Amino acid sequence: MRNIRLLIEYDGTNYVGWQRQDNGKNIQGAIESALHQILQEKVNVIGAGRTDAGVHARGQTANFRTETKLDFLSIKGGLNGLLAEDIVVHNVDEVPHDFHARYSAKERLYSYTITRNPSALLRNYSWYVKYSLDIDLMQRAASAITGTHDFESFCKANSDVGNHFCTVSSAIWLEEDSLLRFTISADRFLHGMVRALVGTMVDIGRGYIQFDDLINILAKKNRSVAGMAAPARGLILEKITY
Amino acid sequence: MRNIRLLIEYDGTNYVGWQRQDNGKNIQGAIESALHQILQEKVNVIGAGRTDAGVHARGQTANFRTETKLDFLSIKGGLNGLLAEDIVVHNVDEVPHDFHARYSAKERLYSYTITRNPSALLRNYSWYVKYSLDIDLMQRAASAITGTHDFESFCKANSDVGNHFCTVSSAIWLEEDSLLRFTISADRFLHGMVRALVGTMVDIGRGYIQFDDLINILAKKNRSVAGMAAPARGLILEKITY
Repeated sequence: MRNIRLLIEYDGTNYVGWQRQDNGKNIQGAIESALHQILQEKVNVIGAGRTDAGVHARGQTANFRTETKLDFLSIKGGLNGLLAEDIVVHNVDEVPHDFHARYSAKERLYSYTITRNPSALLRNYSWYVKYSLDIDLMQRAASAITGTHDFESFCKANSDVGNHFCTVSSAIWLEEDSLLRFTISADRFLHGMVRALVGTMVDIGRGYIQFDDLINILAKKNRSVAGMAAPARGLILEKITY
Repeated sequence: MRNIRLLIEYDGTNYVGWQRQDNGKNIQGAIESALHQILQEKVNVIGAGRTDAGVHARGQTANFRTETKLDFLSIKGGLNGLLAEDIVVHNVDEVPHDFHARYSAKERLYSYTITRNPSALLRNYSWYVKYSLDIDLMQRAASAITGTHDFESFCKANSDVGNHFCTVSSAIWLEEDSLLRFTISADRFLHGMVRALVGTMVDIGRGYIQFDDLINILAKKNRSVAGMAAPARGLILEKITY
């Protein structure tokens, strides 16, 4: 039994998310169907991050176990030949038997893009925020969430995870022309966490939530006290580190 | 009679091009319909560049004459409210009566993006070239076309323009990570010219056409001797200067 790892880029615009489900096109299902054709074998593809509908990935990582003897190039070529243009497999390699795309991950990196003007070309890859924003205050908020914290207030309420502690190793806002780019890396992320953090920091940047309230929001461990979730379209899963 | 100018960004992916025509969704027609609703008046919108199907614009400029007394913000807000998300009007202002978006233009700037790896996120905004390319040679070719030349060999054969002289003021290839970006500015462009130039320079970069042949290709004034046309999706009309 071989354990094969995939490095995957996708445009999530036309998908209901990474996870296999019955209510629409999903990335995991598309890759599993293609592998079924290529390997003549049913496989279960495990993704590092279960991105929501409309969320993109430049560096999603997944693995699956298989009996195939096919080489990496044949698997990669087969996948890219069968998959739609909005999913691209960039690398295929073999990993130790106990490698698990999700549990073996040491760090995850996400980016979030905000535009200060509406954009036709970036409309599926950014959030247009019309309010004037205090970027320094947003960076202070990003610095305040860096480190180990209980992020339950930034986790979708219907999530049934027991432990809400995450260690954020970096959280940075960068201004580039009319774009605002946020990057955040952590050992783990809760469901909806990046979008809830971005939405809350935007609320702080526009003065709707006070910076000093951020500590209270974290302490309350209740999603309803944090800000709105930023739209899915601005979020990209950039990289998984093992 | 007022003469109103529009600065327009659009994603050309789902359009048959700028120009009004019966065979599908076009940018000019979409803007004219929206203006008809807003102004209660039929107007003729003149674009600076008639981009082909799949070609994008960050800085298309257009003008129309109207009897309306509506202010700029109302026209802009009305257009962005009525137009689909893939067309955005960034600015509306008033120009002298003799201003003509196409004939008054002094310089036009286009960009063309090539990816060295297939990309899911950039698939509609770039051309994936799998050949290895000699970028230095491509830049030598770009420098060779700078200046005033007869570009008939790079003009679509069915075009009925008489004068094929264009003055290219700059033509530059830039490598950024796994992207190759070409920018070119000129006083005018012939139909299909940027795509024919990019295709020919790629043919030179991969050794399919010799650099020394470029001068012969220009001299022959015949589209069939130049290289293939690069795909529309990589081309963006960046800016018109008046």
